Formats: sequence, structure tokens, C-alpha cells
Amino acid sequence: MSMVQSPRTRVVVIGAGFGGIEAVRGLAGAAVDITIIDSRNHHLFQPLLYQVATASLTPSDIAWPIRFLFRGRPEVSVLMATATGIDTARRLVMLKGLDPVAYDMLIIATGARHSYFGHDDWEQFAPALKTLEDATTIRRRVLTAFEQAEAEHDPARQEMLLTFAIVGGGPTGVELAGAIAELARDTLKRDFRHIDTRETRIVLVEAGPRLLPAFVPEQSAFAKAALERLGVEVALGEAVTLCDANGIVRGDERIAAATVIWAAGVQASPAAEWLGVPADRAGRITVEPDLSVPGHPEIFAIGDTVSIAAPGGKPVPGIAPAAKQAGRHAAKAVRARLAGETPAPFRYHHDGSLATIGKRRAVIDFGWIRLSGALAWWIWGIAHVFFLIGVRHRLAVAMSWLWIYLRNQRASRLITQTEPGEAGEPPPG
Amino acid sequence: MSMVQSPRTRVVVIGAGFGGIEAVRGLAGAAVDITIIDSRNHHLFQPLLYQVATASLTPSDIAWPIRFLFRGRPEVSVLMATATGIDTARRLVMLKGLDPVAYDMLIIATGARHSYFGHDDWEQFAPALKTLEDATTIRRRVLTAFEQAEAEHDPARQEMLLTFAIVGGGPTGVELAGAIAELARDTLKRDFRHIDTRETRIVLVEAGPRLLPAFVPEQSAFAKAALERLGVEVALGEAVTLCDANGIVRGDERIAAATVIWAAGVQASPAAEWLGVPADRAGRITVEPDLSVPGHPEIFAIGDTVSIAAPGGKPVPGIAPAAKQAGRHAAKAVRARLAGETPAPFRYHHDGSLATIGKRRAVIDFGWIRLSGALAWWIWGIAHVFFLIGVRHRLAVAMSWLWIYLRNQRASRLITQTEPGEAGEPPPG
Repeated sequence: MSMVQSPRTRVVVIGAGFGGIEAVRGLAGAAVDITIIDSRNHHLFQPLLYQVATASLTPSDIAWPIRFLFRGRPEVSVLMATATGIDTARRLVMLKGLDPVAYDMLIIATGARHSYFGHDDWEQFAPALKTLEDATTIRRRVLTAFEQAEAEHDPARQEMLLTFAIVGGGPTGVELAGAIAELARDTLKRDFRHIDTRETRIVLVEAGPRLLPAFVPEQSAFAKAALERLGVEVALGEAVTLCDANGIVRGDERIAAATVIWAAGVQASPAAEWLGVPADRAGRITVEPDLSVPGHPEIFAIGDTVSIAAPGGKPVPGIAPAAKQAGRHAAKAVRARLAGETPAPFRYHHDGSLATIGKRRAVIDFGWIRLSGALAWWIWGIAHVFFLIGVRHRLAVAMSWLWIYLRNQRASRLITQTEPGEAGEPPPG
Repeated sequence: MSMVQSPRTRVVVIGAGFGGIEAVRGLAGAAVDITIIDSRNHHLFQPLLYQVATASLTPSDIAWPIRFLFRGRPEVSVLMATATGIDTARRLVMLKGLDPVAYDMLIIATGARHSYFGHDDWEQFAPALKTLEDATTIRRRVLTAFEQAEAEHDPARQEMLLTFAIVGGGPTGVELAGAIAELARDTLKRDFRHIDTRETRIVLVEAGPRLLPAFVPEQSAFAKAALERLGVEVALGEAVTLCDANGIVRGDERIAAATVIWAAGVQASPAAEWLGVPADRAGRITVEPDLSVPGHPEIFAIGDTVSIAAPGGKPVPGIAPAAKQAGRHAAKAVRARLAGETPAPFRYHHDGSLATIGKRRAVIDFGWIRLSGALAWWIWGIAHVFFLIGVRHRLAVAMSWLWIYLRNQRASRLITQTEPGEAGEPPPG
């Protein structure tokens, strides 16, 4: 498929996150043949992933088959494959186990994944939240901890099973802590006989001096107070120095926790290595103002795998709206090159920052106005339902949330894909 | 928890399938403490499992946390644990990794799992459909086969990837074949660029002379014709003699298929071995007329792990309504023993047999009336939505089905939990 000469310009997009999807959308009607490559078959609405991890939504509520999104675009091919490198001289994307795919123009939207700051061995004890598999892994561990606590006779071990440590006080950490608190205090409170799930200990650990550093200090303080009202312990100003099977160490303090979730750091995809271009400490490519890769006007890189300054010098944040804007810009830049024009520089417009704390509180910073509280939560909910792709998913998510809001019940309290060797493993054979 | 003396009679139920759940329900208000033990945290509506395997429903549409079902019953404890044996002398249920649980009366509802008739090595090539994990495994394999076919250059290999063999012509095999045919011909037809999914080959292999042997021959013939109209090849009268990585062998014929699904045989749980009582060839305990285990008036066994004759001498079928009736009977028998009375014999009442073929055809045999066709499909759909537990799940399932009916779209076309070494594996690290 890829080696056949095509009379039309071949645009290849690697990655079907917010940036890659928006780039393909932006090329609708252009005289190009597009191949979009992703190692998964689905586009994921990552901002709601924490709700899958905490049993509020089901994976298919927030994920869509990539080829379904482009079923009406015959010039778009979707290839489920893992990119392993780029041959810039021959203009080929190398794939694992498949023939390379040739491009005339390339858009790299390979995103980022979590980083353990050099402690990759912590991952087994403290899973992070980037993929659907991560979310169902965390969901299984959280729900299994309650099940094991119910069967446990040793009080110390029971306490450890009922302790959840979340590392990282950004939006993901805050949202996970709030959701686990509500799961324990509301959803599960009538379901157990030997433990009181309302006594669950949830510790949110942040190395910096406040939660949600992208917000103003007043909103950080609001988030801390709102979490504490939900019963979350917020531990600031001290980094985690160890994760193991018994919990975490924070400064001199050991927190005995059977469940640890990592929401602390991200590392860009290896795209900079593929291209042999310089990268910052987080592995991000420093791109030209038009988002092209230095020395490669035929290659654009967007989203969490690049580093670029917004007007005013602040870095463009690693959030979905920024990746979508960059994807739209990359499509325009490709069109400009096709027309023999010089692409305009990318100008990021910051629409606002949102984070939610449990089911009735949120903080929003639109720049021109800041909201903290119940109204912000309603705006957050409506905005997220609005941005979900497809009528059916909007309805399904809205229905799930309505159910949780009214009844404290959650759609997806399933423990599946048990890890080998864990208690609760299904019987062999 | 278990070793503490309780003044109330302790009833232990092993297994939270249809039989176990109904037994606990039937004991509502009785002066007993109940512990229900299951290796999963959820009760599963197995009759719709094939719809999860074929991307129509999502796992949480058809599964409920067991403890959620009994949250209003303080005398019911739910224990997520794997039973490994029964000490009938000391009246203890042995558990993997946990202390034994003591009982005064025991209800065994451990069900059955698939059987490969002595060829357990076939399982890796031909997964069967009993658990949610089985369903998501089959869903992943079916959807990945289409993805791999799209990327494949070798026509023979592509044909093999687009061939699906289903072994076993009972309701599960018929339902899977019809659903995969509609997935290929309707849902996916506009989504691929290099393959025509309408040319997918689906072969349903049955060793016996007709499909759906529990129905009358006219309905078997109707099902065969309806499947053939959907493009399914029905191959009768010859058993499968080999399953391997390249497909199956049926008599002298090799069918090259990348995806094989096993819907052929079941084997009872090892409960007969635990008790040291005689079992039939499928491992089922032959119980007394009141469903008690011979020699153990304090132990009842119900559902797919037992063999019992219905009035007229035919065996009670391994279907959900039969398990539920037996569960209700076991609860009554326990109440009778508590009152010092002799339990009545179990009388199975057969309400009917149902099987569906794709999204517009079904066969129903109520005994007094037989229906084949579109009306039967509507009755099937309404009956299944009605029997689903909980308003929310009924709505969610009804909405998913409406969507498929009107738009041919499916909620759950997600490929997750990729098997190591398979193409499409997520990038490591």
C-alpha cells in the first residue's frame, strides 16, 4: 500500500490523539492522501480517563474507533501500527512488523507518557493514567483493595488496604483524589459488612508548595479546602522519595498504602530521537514558529511531544485545547506548503484552565473571569459533554453522571483482567 | 470473620451466577447469616455475553457488583475469593489465600465452564465465551483481525485474517455467527480502505446434523436459512478434529481462519471432586430430588454443576431460568430444614427456549407456541431487557440496541488489553 507511487501528495499523521485527529480534520477537502497511524484502534478523550479509573464511566464512553471518525473520508486510511522510527532521507515512517509507510509531508503527534523521573521500577507499584488499560488497571486495584480489606483480619493490614496515596497535585491528582473520596464515602458505604469505607484514608502528595500550580493561589487554596472537606489529606512541599509494595516514602514519613497512583510527571514520546533533533529535558522537540521541525520543512510536530512558547513567553500547556489548536495549525501549514506559500507562525490562544474536585466543586480560570465552586462544576460538566465526540457518547456520559449525581451509583464497578498472583485471581483452567 | 461463633444459622452460597443470586434473594427475611463467595466481584448476565464479544454492549452493561445487589441486606456478606474445596466433616469452605469460612448449610452454585473435550491445548487458538475477560478477548481478536487484514499485502494471509470459524451450533454459536456477520457487513463496511469487510467469510461448524438441537427441526432449518441470508456458511455433520494457529480441521477439510471461537462444550465446576460424590461424564453432581447432595442433607447443589431430570425424564437444561428456579428452590429447602420440615422435591418448569440470529431474526419455542422471525426477535429483545437487573442497565442496553438497529453503529469497538507478542501491541515502556 505504502510503496505504490501516488499522484497526490501523501500526508502521514502519527498519533490519533487530539492533535492528530484535528490535523486530519483540518485537511478535509485538500488534494492529499492521508494515512493516520496509531498503535491503538481508538481515539481517547483523556481528560475523562480518571472517571474510568474511578468506576464512573466505562471505557467505551470516552473512546472511539479512529476509523469510525473518518469513515466518510475515502482519502483517509487508518493504520493500526506502532511507529518505531523515521527515515527522513527516504521519507519513510518505520513500523513494527509492517512495511514502512512513505510520506511527502509528515505530522508527528505522538504525545507524551508518564515519567517516573528516572525511577521506572516504581511503575509496578504506582501505575499512572494515560491509556484505557491504565485506567482499568487502576480501577481494578482500587476496587480490589476494598474487597481485600473486607476479608482481612489483621487491623494494620486492613488499614493499609484502606489507604490510597496519589502522587502529584495537578488536575489529574486532584480529580483522582476527589473521585476516590466520593467512591469510598458515598458509593460504597452500604456495600461492606466488615469495614467502614467512610474511614478510607486518601493522601494526595505534591512536591510543590500548592495544588494546581497552573491556577492562581486562591484557586489552589480553594481546591485544597474542597478536597479536605471530602476527607482527603493534602500533603504539600515534600517529594516522594520511594514507591514500593508497602506504599510511599515522603521526606522522612512512610505512608503505608496498598494502592498508589502516579499523577506526577510526563515524558515526551521518542520522536526527537527518531529525527535526531535536539530535545528539552522532558524529551520535547523545540519546533520552529510554524511548528515545523528544524531542518525539515516537510515535517511538523505538535502537541505534548513538542515545546513551544505561547505569546508572552510562557510555554504552551499540555492540554487538549492546545493540541487541537496545533493540529489545526499543522493542517493549515500543510495547505500553505502545497500552495507554495510560507506557513504562518502558530499562535496559541489560551481559552482557560479547568479542574474538578469531586462531583460538586470545580475551579475554572478563563483569564478574564475565575470561578470556584458549584457553578464552575456545572460549566466543567457541560463543557466536557459538549466536547465529547458523537451524540451517542454525549448521551451515555450525561446519563452516567446524572446517575452518580442523583443516586451515588457508578456504572463500572467491575474488577476484570486480574493480575496473575493477586488475590481474587480467577481459578485456573 | 468466619471462625467466630454466630447464634444464627450460617448459610454459605458459593457462586454468584443466576442460581446463587436467586438463592440469596429467596432467603430474604429468614433468620440466617449469609455469606456469598465468588472469585469475581460481579454477577454476569451471561446470555448477552456474545454482544460484548461482538462490540454491541460494553462489559458494565451486563455486569453488576455482587455487593451492590445485596447492599440493602445487612445479614448478607459478600466475599471475593476463590473456593478451592469443601471440608464436609468440619463444615468449612476452603479458600485460596484466605481463612476457611464455616457453614451450617451450604448452597453450591459454581456453574460450568467450557470444555475442549480433552484438547485443552486448543484453548489458546479458540477462546470460549464464559467470562467478561473471555468476551473482551474475543472482541479484541475479532477487531484486530480486521485491522491486520487492512495492513496485509499477501492475499492468502488477508483471506485467512478475514475468515472467522465458530465451533458449535447451539445458541451461543448461532448468536456469535449472526453478530459477526452483521459487524462485518453493516457496521464496518465504510471504515476500511484496502479490504471489503462485506467479503468476510464466517463459518459455523456443528458436529451434529442440525443447528440449535434444543429446538424443533423446523426452527433449526429456519436458523440455518437466516444465517445463510446473512452470509454465514453453516457446516453440519462433521466434528472439528484440530484447532491450531492456522485455523481448524473439520473432517478432511482445513479451514484457514485467523480467528476461531469455541462454543461447543461445557464442563461442570469441580464441586463433585470437592465433595467426593459421583459425577456424570460432564462432571455434574447427581443430586437428590430436593437438590441436596447425596449423604449431605445440609448441602444443596444447583445450576450447571448438577444433573437432574425434569418431569418426563429430559434433563433440566443449562439455561438461566432453570438456574434461577433451582436457586429459589434451594432457598425454600433451607427454610424447610430450619423449620424441621422435609424439603419438597424440585419441579422444573420450562418456560421456553430462545435464540437470536442477527438483529432482526430469532426463534422462540414456548412449547404451546413456536415463533420464528422478526416478531420472535422483538420478544427476545424485550424479554432480555426486562430480565436485566436495575433500571440503569436496562436503559443503557436499550439505548445501545436502538443505536445499532437505527445506525448500525456499535458502542464498544475498542481493542484493549493487547496480548504480548501480537501485532498491534502497545509500545513498551
